[in-house]
Amino acid sequence: MLKAFQVAPLSSELDDDIQHKIDFKTKPPGSLGGLESIAYQVARIQRTLTPTIERAQMLVFAADHGAVDKGISAFPQEVTAQMVTNFLAGGAAVSVFCRQHQVPLKVVDVGVKVDMPDHPLLSKRKVASASQDFSEQAALTLDEVNQALSAGADEVDACQDVDILLFGEMGIGNTGVSSCMMSAITGTKPEQTAGRGTGLDDAGVSKKAQIIAASLKRAEQALHKPVGEWAPWEVATQVGGLEILAMSGAMLRSAELGKPFVVDGFICTVALLFASQIQAAVTDYAIFAHQSDEQAHKTLLQQFQAEPILKLDLRLGEGSGAILSYPIIKSAVVFFNDMASFESAGVSNAT
Amino acid sequence: MLKAFQVAPLSSELDDDIQHKIDFKTKPPGSLGGLESIAYQVARIQRTLTPTIERAQMLVFAADHGAVDKGISAFPQEVTAQMVTNFLAGGAAVSVFCRQHQVPLKVVDVGVKVDMPDHPLLSKRKVASASQDFSEQAALTLDEVNQALSAGADEVDACQDVDILLFGEMGIGNTGVSSCMMSAITGTKPEQTAGRGTGLDDAGVSKKAQIIAASLKRAEQALHKPVGEWAPWEVATQVGGLEILAMSGAMLRSAELGKPFVVDGFICTVALLFASQIQAAVTDYAIFAHQSDEQAHKTLLQQFQAEPILKLDLRLGEGSGAILSYPIIKSAVVFFNDMASFESAGVSNAT
Repeated sequence: MLKAFQVAPLSSELDDDIQHKIDFKTKPPGSLGGLESIAYQVARIQRTLTPTIERAQMLVFAADHGAVDKGISAFPQEVTAQMVTNFLAGGAAVSVFCRQHQVPLKVVDVGVKVDMPDHPLLSKRKVASASQDFSEQAALTLDEVNQALSAGADEVDACQDVDILLFGEMGIGNTGVSSCMMSAITGTKPEQTAGRGTGLDDAGVSKKAQIIAASLKRAEQALHKPVGEWAPWEVATQVGGLEILAMSGAMLRSAELGKPFVVDGFICTVALLFASQIQAAVTDYAIFAHQSDEQAHKTLLQQFQAEPILKLDLRLGEGSGAILSYPIIKSAVVFFNDMASFESAGVSNAT
Repeated sequence: MLKAFQVAPLSSELDDDIQHKIDFKTKPPGSLGGLESIAYQVARIQRTLTPTIERAQMLVFAADHGAVDKGISAFPQEVTAQMVTNFLAGGAAVSVFCRQHQVPLKVVDVGVKVDMPDHPLLSKRKVASASQDFSEQAALTLDEVNQALSAGADEVDACQDVDILLFGEMGIGNTGVSSCMMSAITGTKPEQTAGRGTGLDDAGVSKKAQIIAASLKRAEQALHKPVGEWAPWEVATQVGGLEILAMSGAMLRSAELGKPFVVDGFICTVALLFASQIQAAVTDYAIFAHQSDEQAHKTLLQQFQAEPILKLDLRLGEGSGAILSYPIIKSAVVFFNDMASFESAGVSNAT
């Protein structure tokens, strides 16, 4: 059985008070646009009129994927471990942005093919050395799936003093795995879920879509069920990726604890899609960092009725979009807590 | 004669080296999207492969507008001075965001109707107590226009140790004044340049467009020239606003000094439009903070081929969008300076 989570939907108890506080700040109503929505959401999640976003933690989950052997990425598989080393050494995009914002970074190895040496920023939670090639067989066992979900949940539990979690991922081929998971869950055709990832050309995208289609067909035959009708555990075992499932577990635990979390790009959004199959209310706790270049990401964001903070055509992953959006999320809380009201500042309201 | 400025277009000498440095960071080429464009622009402006964005200054220019008496704003004129007081007391949106990012804020009074008491954050450069009502007569004298341009330039000169300037404005009615200036410069009809501002309804927008149309007609008769054909000094004297012209002067001086500056919303973008009529190269130094709800702002940004950093439906002004975009601009420089290259990190490049 799949690991269980229990996420409470947000209470609407404070809704009117929160909106009133936003509307009587010294500004025309609605004029802080997307910031007002974030402030509203964070206040609801934290159930307070004085929310706090001071201590954040970036968790980057890393794993390899058997299907990479079939050619679904522009980069070779060895890059997963090389980039983890780069994260730990402080040279990657997510590293430098976390440093800029003084957000601690931890890398969680849930399935990198290579054994990584010990490092203070590395959490060793290897479930397997990569998933199996899902074009040939089920990607993971149910036990592996549950270990990945637990690894994510445990890492969130370890962040006791944190107000907000930021999630990222590293795993060569995981854009393709995400496309496959999205097709499996939603029934959307692989041609609509497969994209360029880190830089495939048209032929590469087409090949990736074919591999995904073949993999889904194999799994449909094994499960005797068409895509769109698989149970969450069937999606995860047939075509899951370890770092993606670990993110799902982390999101679910974050929501259980009543903490907001930041969703990075396409892969992270697919982790949320999977998590929402387990507990739909998890999306209430999700702040969407950015809209990437990946077409399937736009589709998913629309499905979640999400208004992501940034639209900068980022497509790097790693949690880079999440950390870039972090100062904006803080700004939402800053205006909500610190701005004067018309009354307190003695400013006349609209006529 | 209008105050003269001399802005040098950017040199292309380092272009290849800058692009090479961006492309060999440990990330797929182009995957940092808009951040790569900002890094490229800042490196070109500062003519270095190691640009610095550490010390910023926010300058908010404030003034009143005679045409407000005709009813072009949802808020009464007294709010200009009240909001300046709010800026100085630290309670406005721009105040709290500047504090968040440790960016000093200075308010420059170039034409607020009320006499403001001394304050350490206030620069008193009052040119007049508001412009004249341009629906009845020319808004400003040429001397007043030049004083406003000089006030802006002088304030930038006073920021010697600053790497980047952020501009904002406060002036009840100045969305309407900006629409009028845009129509005067570009010949675009007032129905296309007038918008909701801080919160007009459909009838209010329509009335504003009519007032602008009547004002332009009055000026056309005075100048014996149709809109779109006026010289910059004619635009400024007939329908200019003091804080808008001061921002134009500040932008031109910033560009003269080879310093990047951040353009806030619609009003700030119209200040750039006016500045670009004096020295076209000024736009090379402009970083566009955000795209607002105001339709005419979208039109102008397209004209400048600008890809603004944020699209959060902000419509507050004050420089609030500029300061919200500031951490993203810093991130662009952070990745450019601090990220590892494929070579330095020992990461394999795409196959």
